[in-house]
Amino acid sequence: MRATVMYRAGDVRLEEVPDPQLQTGRDAVVRVVAACVCGSDLWGYRGVTPTDSPRRMGHEFVGVIEQAGADVENVQVGDFVIGSFYDCDFTCEICRSGFSSSCLELGWYEGCQAELIRVPHADGSLAVVPAGRLTDELIPHLLTLSDVFGTGHHAAHAARVAAGSEVAVVGDGAVGLSAVLAAHRLGASRIVAMSRNPQRQALAREFGATDIVEERGAEGAAVVKELFRGIGPHAVLEAVGTAESMEQAVRSVRPGGTIGYVGVPHGGPELPLRPMFGNNTVLAGGVAPVRNYVDELLPDVLSGRVQPGKVFDLELPLSEIAEAYRAMDERRAIKVLVRP
Amino acid sequence: MRATVMYRAGDVRLEEVPDPQLQTGRDAVVRVVAACVCGSDLWGYRGVTPTDSPRRMGHEFVGVIEQAGADVENVQVGDFVIGSFYDCDFTCEICRSGFSSSCLELGWYEGCQAELIRVPHADGSLAVVPAGRLTDELIPHLLTLSDVFGTGHHAAHAARVAAGSEVAVVGDGAVGLSAVLAAHRLGASRIVAMSRNPQRQALAREFGATDIVEERGAEGAAVVKELFRGIGPHAVLEAVGTAESMEQAVRSVRPGGTIGYVGVPHGGPELPLRPMFGNNTVLAGGVAPVRNYVDELLPDVLSGRVQPGKVFDLELPLSEIAEAYRAMDERRAIKVLVRP
Repeated sequence: MRATVMYRAGDVRLEEVPDPQLQTGRDAVVRVVAACVCGSDLWGYRGVTPTDSPRRMGHEFVGVIEQAGADVENVQVGDFVIGSFYDCDFTCEICRSGFSSSCLELGWYEGCQAELIRVPHADGSLAVVPAGRLTDELIPHLLTLSDVFGTGHHAAHAARVAAGSEVAVVGDGAVGLSAVLAAHRLGASRIVAMSRNPQRQALAREFGATDIVEERGAEGAAVVKELFRGIGPHAVLEAVGTAESMEQAVRSVRPGGTIGYVGVPHGGPELPLRPMFGNNTVLAGGVAPVRNYVDELLPDVLSGRVQPGKVFDLELPLSEIAEAYRAMDERRAIKVLVRP
Repeated sequence: MRATVMYRAGDVRLEEVPDPQLQTGRDAVVRVVAACVCGSDLWGYRGVTPTDSPRRMGHEFVGVIEQAGADVENVQVGDFVIGSFYDCDFTCEICRSGFSSSCLELGWYEGCQAELIRVPHADGSLAVVPAGRLTDELIPHLLTLSDVFGTGHHAAHAARVAAGSEVAVVGDGAVGLSAVLAAHRLGASRIVAMSRNPQRQALAREFGATDIVEERGAEGAAVVKELFRGIGPHAVLEAVGTAESMEQAVRSVRPGGTIGYVGVPHGGPELPLRPMFGNNTVLAGGVAPVRNYVDELLPDVLSGRVQPGKVFDLELPLSEIAEAYRAMDERRAIKVLVRP
């Protein structure tokens, strides 16, 4: 089959590799219908994290089960499934408590920017789309449940966004925009998107943002606070993961408010505790347990009430995976969907 | 009147000073019935924070209103009141939302290790004990509502401790012990107190601790995790404020669990974000809004259902304030109550 391999920074290739095989009775092999490039894939592409040896890429996918191990019970050959960007059993105490991304059997797989992908805990990691509900138009929206919309929802859910909540979102990438949509879906009354990019501003508004703030740093925080009676919003959703973005969130949120953070802390910024202590700032979030959120989010995706797949503003065949990375890297695209 | 003044590390004196006067119509002057020495008072005493000029000490008190300004409405001369360790209006949006310790009119006063204390927002900062309910035996317990029990409650409340919660408490000072009591009061099913001191272990058990762990660091975290099926407790209440204690909490809590922290971050330890992100650890807490908690906690104190004043294991006349500091500093006493 053909699969995406990263050799080094800036060097991504589609190559012929052996087809994946079932390794245990709990495995499934899924034929990928759609996958995409993640912001975190760019770390290696940009050389922020080193790529010491060639590595298979991709952890977001939807597809059809082609083979299932003997012990697989919840899914079967032919099912259209949504993947999770991690592998979980979905039965342990931690999974059941809502945090499958910290499953006691947690695993990571990569390699779904390819024609086929092996999933170790098929019963846990894969969510089935009910037969008869699938249309081609739904595929981009369903694909976001494997990572980006579930992650945006995690930021809002962790920050306890609810009807009437006041929210600001730091980050205008696919996750930040998804957080805007998630906050809107949960009933937030006012949502400030922080962005300087006209295209992303437009999508933020389409997703439910009521205000756009272009300023950054201390000035940005002051503008955000002022939009909320000088005290700031209940929740700030942080979807970047840098020291600057976290400081933006800490400075903007109101006393007693919550930062819902899903930007992977990258490059080791530690969190300034003292101002958070003084303001009773709650910090909640982390690696999004997207598998836990499918039950809640899937019906709204199937009904069209939310269309999170609008974050995909470029679609390419898998054969053009190198261009998909370039478009993301150069910020020509918010998020790129690829089809084998 | 006589008041406590800190001159420099290790040098605390009782001195004759002018009586406080009403300065605005919103002020009250309170005759102190009981005050106490706080763990945070020891920072100056131990030279951890410098004392550049003589400074009046004390921020926890109960007493009787002796004078009230013309605009004071909620309290009156003769009322027995519980102070808050900060000054708040208790009417602003932030106070009403539960976080009076971040009041938009927030102020700090010190100086209640004295015969009299002026309170700037008497209507906000002072809580009245209903007439006819006061007994001398209740005074130590009521005094804890001005800081230490309210602070322990904040750790548990912020960590959403409820019936059936599994809890570990880092810190065996008065606040840590109060956190044990607060968790027990809220219905926690299992409470691990981390302590090596037999006297504090005993009080922890009296307050509701079900287990004692003497180990510290990585070993302590491993022992705590093992007590909870290898995954750790739902909540860790952190009542110290050092990098070591916070790391203890981060290492001990279960994935998706919450650290309720009330130990003032002191000496600038920044928080390691990456392991918290990976475990979806929630961080909640900060400067305790004790004024907001009086309504909930006072009835249980008045009824004797909880006896948080047991943290006072030494009582001295105000004239022996220097000995009160020494006893706390040398850890001969958990917490010292002083009476003018």
